[in-house]
Amino acid sequence: MATAVSPLAPACFPDMPALDGVRVATAAAGIRYAGRTDVLLALFAPGTTVAGVFTRSKCPSAAVDWCRTHIKSGRASALVVNSGNANAFTGKSGRLATKLTAELARKAAGCRQEDVYLASTGVIGEPLDATKFGKVMDKLVADAGQGRWQDAARAIMTTDTFPKGAAAVSRLGSTPVTICGVAKGAGMIAPDMATMLAFVFTDAPISSRVLQSLLANGVVDSFNAVTIDGDTSTSDTLLAFATGTAAARGAPRITRAADPRLAAFRKSFESVLANLAEQVARDGEGARKLVEVIVEGAKSKHSARKIALSIANSPLVKTAIAGEDANWGRVVMAVGKAGEPADRDRLSIWFGGIRVAHRGERDPAYDEAAVAAVMRKPEISLKVALGIGRGRDRVLTCDLTKDYVAINGDYRS
Amino acid sequence: MATAVSPLAPACFPDMPALDGVRVATAAAGIRYAGRTDVLLALFAPGTTVAGVFTRSKCPSAAVDWCRTHIKSGRASALVVNSGNANAFTGKSGRLATKLTAELARKAAGCRQEDVYLASTGVIGEPLDATKFGKVMDKLVADAGQGRWQDAARAIMTTDTFPKGAAAVSRLGSTPVTICGVAKGAGMIAPDMATMLAFVFTDAPISSRVLQSLLANGVVDSFNAVTIDGDTSTSDTLLAFATGTAAARGAPRITRAADPRLAAFRKSFESVLANLAEQVARDGEGARKLVEVIVEGAKSKHSARKIALSIANSPLVKTAIAGEDANWGRVVMAVGKAGEPADRDRLSIWFGGIRVAHRGERDPAYDEAAVAAVMRKPEISLKVALGIGRGRDRVLTCDLTKDYVAINGDYRS
Repeated sequence: MATAVSPLAPACFPDMPALDGVRVATAAAGIRYAGRTDVLLALFAPGTTVAGVFTRSKCPSAAVDWCRTHIKSGRASALVVNSGNANAFTGKSGRLATKLTAELARKAAGCRQEDVYLASTGVIGEPLDATKFGKVMDKLVADAGQGRWQDAARAIMTTDTFPKGAAAVSRLGSTPVTICGVAKGAGMIAPDMATMLAFVFTDAPISSRVLQSLLANGVVDSFNAVTIDGDTSTSDTLLAFATGTAAARGAPRITRAADPRLAAFRKSFESVLANLAEQVARDGEGARKLVEVIVEGAKSKHSARKIALSIANSPLVKTAIAGEDANWGRVVMAVGKAGEPADRDRLSIWFGGIRVAHRGERDPAYDEAAVAAVMRKPEISLKVALGIGRGRDRVLTCDLTKDYVAINGDYRS
Repeated sequence: MATAVSPLAPACFPDMPALDGVRVATAAAGIRYAGRTDVLLALFAPGTTVAGVFTRSKCPSAAVDWCRTHIKSGRASALVVNSGNANAFTGKSGRLATKLTAELARKAAGCRQEDVYLASTGVIGEPLDATKFGKVMDKLVADAGQGRWQDAARAIMTTDTFPKGAAAVSRLGSTPVTICGVAKGAGMIAPDMATMLAFVFTDAPISSRVLQSLLANGVVDSFNAVTIDGDTSTSDTLLAFATGTAAARGAPRITRAADPRLAAFRKSFESVLANLAEQVARDGEGARKLVEVIVEGAKSKHSARKIALSIANSPLVKTAIAGEDANWGRVVMAVGKAGEPADRDRLSIWFGGIRVAHRGERDPAYDEAAVAAVMRKPEISLKVALGIGRGRDRVLTCDLTKDYVAINGDYRS
């Protein structure tokens, strides 16, 4: 397995502030990996609200089932995440493992079992031995402290080559509030949801209903606009926790999504989601190039999204980009197969700002050498103009390299 | 570019009989390749009927547009196919190229221009210089002879590593009739239609309407059940020509698809389509393993097809198979992402007849060594039983190897 850090990784882990009401700790429970942490515990201040969006897989993991059941209350006291084992397709033993994990956290943290949230990522189909959490749970609770975001991001990595975090300082009304998020994901990444796991925390006092609305809107152009391989995980989980501790500093309590005092916060929240989602694309398995696909002039945003995903998921487009080949013929193919309204004779295509095809034909003016220079860059923007409407959308993906095949041919063995 | 013959190729080109009423010739017109043939001309006896199915791409090639316009007559006199250039996304010059090609064939063969059918395969977006056909057309007509199927199959190859042909001797009523087909396709292969080009010929006297019905039904479980990369070509074309010359030997003229005298012929016709489609899967770019995906117990055949394609198109499933890893967790993932009715707790999965998962959990009885032996074979059958209905379907695909990436990273350059 390739273990070098992705060449598209950010230069360093961001400087993320401590967040009042959230304490985290990590431990090595020996779930699967040796010599690294594989469990994350987060403990929340009383009154913390929670919202979540989950995989649309018809075969979700036991942890996803658990969260879906309990999130209706909108309350959260703790979060337990493990890497190395997805606890998916593990049947009755999987359900028992979620129950045992929550029970262990309840005992150690002194909270209600149903206020413990769970996520698991790693191999599918292997039974998860949750008793291993028992050996580290008390220490996790004792160790938990503020601001250990990089530790948190590291503990949840699987094939990720770098830990992923993002933060923003925003305002709720006129009170400063903080948003911190961590994510993991590198393969089995497709829209709905384009990540395996992501957790976002804030001290803003926001009701679970408002938080759910922020999440549901926020994923559309962030996690749902990233695709690595078109494969949808059984475990995709995005949870947001709002401790409300900023209320003590004068932040208003927000209980309506339409509250105008939410405007700045909403923007910051969405930027944290977009930042984390982009990092997932930057860590696409085997990726050497980050690819932005922009579709405009489509019949609608929905139609533009479908066409953009058809391009971003096409193995032929992605291998051409890996080969630094501005093969716009394959882009035409991918537009054509999307099944959305398109008129070949109005289609124009750009690579990195250079128009290579115009109104259904090769652009006679285009300079192959200039395009070749664009294709050698680590970040490539590919734009398609359909010329039939005003729908526009953007998705992120990466190239498809031999390393993707190598990484995924050896993962389990 | 890998040029070695696929390890999954048939041992030899099949022994295909001459077919009364069809004469073929090939030539090197220098469209793109050096040192090989790249044009196929087929000439048909008077009264030949034709039927066709084409790509569902919204950006079809100029040749596909041409065929769609003219096939309504049901009459055919000639077929001109070139490799090296797809004449797709070539705008007005592409339309002029199709017209010129048909005009050249008309002049040389002495037929009506609208009874000339065209297909082009190769690079998208480069103008096709049809004047090159003018230099070889008279010689093609003069050279045309019966039974040169392997020459025909070779002239239409692009990234194919072996020529693809299949034949059957069947009966129409009690009269022996012959069916011969050639195909090309190795990448950009997805259902609707799972090939770039295929041509089937018969001496049976069958009306164009009946031929169309045979084709439309025949593709469902042949070409539409093969996927290499989920990418749909702009040029996919399957044409069937029936010369009717067997009528002179007493074959009945068939003008109704429900005619019971068609039964044996229908079966043979479908077997030729299935044989050609399987050869396309065997020549999947970079393929080292032929993979049969069977889904049963689904809600319907349609639902089973969608799930089978979700598995067969999953990069994670295909790379696992390339790595000889019986990673059934990824099969669960692919079932889950298909969006079709499925119940995780009733799901069972087999590799090569060995059950690895049963009712939503790893099968406790399964022997990893036995499964490993299955995975080392060049042909692998993967079966999923959903346990919720009676829908069943089967699709063919191949593994996703580093060679697929290498072939498609270098194709245009």
